[in-house]
Amino acid sequence: MAGGTGSRFWPMSRPNHPKQFIDIFGQGKTMLQSTFERYSKLCPRENIIIVTSEAFEDKVRMQIPSLLDHQVLCEPTRRNTAPCVAYAAAIINEINPNANIIVSPSDHAIFGDSQFEHDLGEAISVTDKHDWIVTLGATPSNPNTKYGYIQFAEDPSLSEDCNLHKVVTFTEKPPLEMAMQFIQSGEFLWNAGIFVWRLPVLMEAYRKFLPNVADNFFSLGIASPKEDIERAYTAVEKISVDFGIIEKAENVHVMKSTFGWSDVETWDSLYQTCNKDDYGNAIAAGEVMLYDCNDCMIHVADGRTLIVKDLDDYIVNVTEKKVLICPRNQEQMIAKFASDFYLKNEK
Amino acid sequence: MAGGTGSRFWPMSRPNHPKQFIDIFGQGKTMLQSTFERYSKLCPRENIIIVTSEAFEDKVRMQIPSLLDHQVLCEPTRRNTAPCVAYAAAIINEINPNANIIVSPSDHAIFGDSQFEHDLGEAISVTDKHDWIVTLGATPSNPNTKYGYIQFAEDPSLSEDCNLHKVVTFTEKPPLEMAMQFIQSGEFLWNAGIFVWRLPVLMEAYRKFLPNVADNFFSLGIASPKEDIERAYTAVEKISVDFGIIEKAENVHVMKSTFGWSDVETWDSLYQTCNKDDYGNAIAAGEVMLYDCNDCMIHVADGRTLIVKDLDDYIVNVTEKKVLICPRNQEQMIAKFASDFYLKNEK
Repeated sequence: MAGGTGSRFWPMSRPNHPKQFIDIFGQGKTMLQSTFERYSKLCPRENIIIVTSEAFEDKVRMQIPSLLDHQVLCEPTRRNTAPCVAYAAAIINEINPNANIIVSPSDHAIFGDSQFEHDLGEAISVTDKHDWIVTLGATPSNPNTKYGYIQFAEDPSLSEDCNLHKVVTFTEKPPLEMAMQFIQSGEFLWNAGIFVWRLPVLMEAYRKFLPNVADNFFSLGIASPKEDIERAYTAVEKISVDFGIIEKAENVHVMKSTFGWSDVETWDSLYQTCNKDDYGNAIAAGEVMLYDCNDCMIHVADGRTLIVKDLDDYIVNVTEKKVLICPRNQEQMIAKFASDFYLKNEK
Repeated sequence: MAGGTGSRFWPMSRPNHPKQFIDIFGQGKTMLQSTFERYSKLCPRENIIIVTSEAFEDKVRMQIPSLLDHQVLCEPTRRNTAPCVAYAAAIINEINPNANIIVSPSDHAIFGDSQFEHDLGEAISVTDKHDWIVTLGATPSNPNTKYGYIQFAEDPSLSEDCNLHKVVTFTEKPPLEMAMQFIQSGEFLWNAGIFVWRLPVLMEAYRKFLPNVADNFFSLGIASPKEDIERAYTAVEKISVDFGIIEKAENVHVMKSTFGWSDVETWDSLYQTCNKDDYGNAIAAGEVMLYDCNDCMIHVADGRTLIVKDLDDYIVNVTEKKVLICPRNQEQMIAKFASDFYLKNEK
């Protein structure tokens, strides 16, 4: 899934150039490229389907030039993730009606590639044998109030060695106090938004919980004309696969991941995930010379050098067209700066 | 004179791209272009000779494409201003041996173009009639310790209406206390580095005070081969026209300028010369969105937008390749940052 428009990461992430297309960790590859590479180790490259918005098709094909025509699906309108997954499922159904499918965001950070490969391999071996939906749960490192939490329970009938658990509850974006209780209890995992299921299981769940989406999308195929795709998107409401299916289905299990995970949706979550220097500065990317700076979150786009003296607890983001300097504890203001900027520049 | 390498204005000004070639006030023209335009109102454009270093010839010709071959003189080595002026004088001597000559830096700021035009016109009318050297003196607005000061005395024999005065003393870069006394006395002007004299007066002064420079340079001409120019530069010492001639000659008068002047050699002097917003921020150039910022000095190169929240008393400079963020009172550190940068990047 590569259609998101990360708005809280401005100016690094912009409406027409969102996070999945950016090298946020300065690794020489964008999040989409990293995600593609990660899944290329789990299945043949040509089995990866990328769903994005029409406006981003060129970016996707530019960043992964090897993609065949049918590997990029373009959404004419934004309908959240349930229609997106259904569209991809319909295409996969033409190729292999019994395929194991991993549904995954393309703009999340994964720490520990070999653990990731191991966990996903296990998940597929589970869905291969059972008509289950396996969702990946990350061990929470802090009481994040922006994440979804999955409460799990031990189930003696499940194999111990693949960390599989029964799902008890889903809680989206709990208040801080609740999130703290969740963490203390040790019974909760972060919902990493990665779902593994076989195609017949997926289709059955859609037919049961989102029959309108199933009716409109499962008849689509590689050869479908653009009008049919547009008609399908027009016929359905915005709904997420989490809310529409995963939280309602009874055959959902959660696998406790052994890799680290972050959705890196905000400057603060990027700061949390980055390595820090001796003074607490997180330099996600770029050539940076710091003098007497502490606890700063820094991201500099390609080629530029940032020189800073005497700055504590600031975000500094240098992009091709913009420079943002903002205290880390004022991050919630950034949406306003972005809206001011576009108001000013669209006149 | 366009050969300087402003080092204290980093990173806006760089050794290979010094201040005269930069649009430091965001006016859509560089200091060289502004200076050229200013003098174009006083004499035909083709009478303007620009002396620069060989390395900068392309920059000069790119910024002022109308220049004829002989209007750009290239210095093979840096010898300060006395040889530079002598070289230009030799060329002018071939065109008009009785020319009035204005010697001027190309990287200073002038405020009040019509006053400038008026004052220089007056100065030329003086040198046209008298065998005098007229130097322009700016009224000091603060006890700047980086400037040269000219003490003047009323001279009843001089015409009142052109603000001409006898020169009593020259003092280069006085200590702060002395500078403050200078200002209080009302008898001192800043040496703006602009000298007006007729060619025979100039040549006579050189022959008297810098005979070695005169011998080596006055024989040069438009057709001189490169070797002759190199030989002349090799034969002389580094010496400024101020120290070598103006401070020694007896026929020097100072004209109190009615225009504003600054050599804008440092971020602080740029701050002093810029208009401020209601919060004391000086935005010299660029698209800037400030939120709760005070007393900042900001310069953003073409096309970028700077967004800043909660910054007081900082310099923020955004160039094509670098971003500097530094407290205004730490400006003296910038030379170190620049040297660290070049050490790091020349490896």
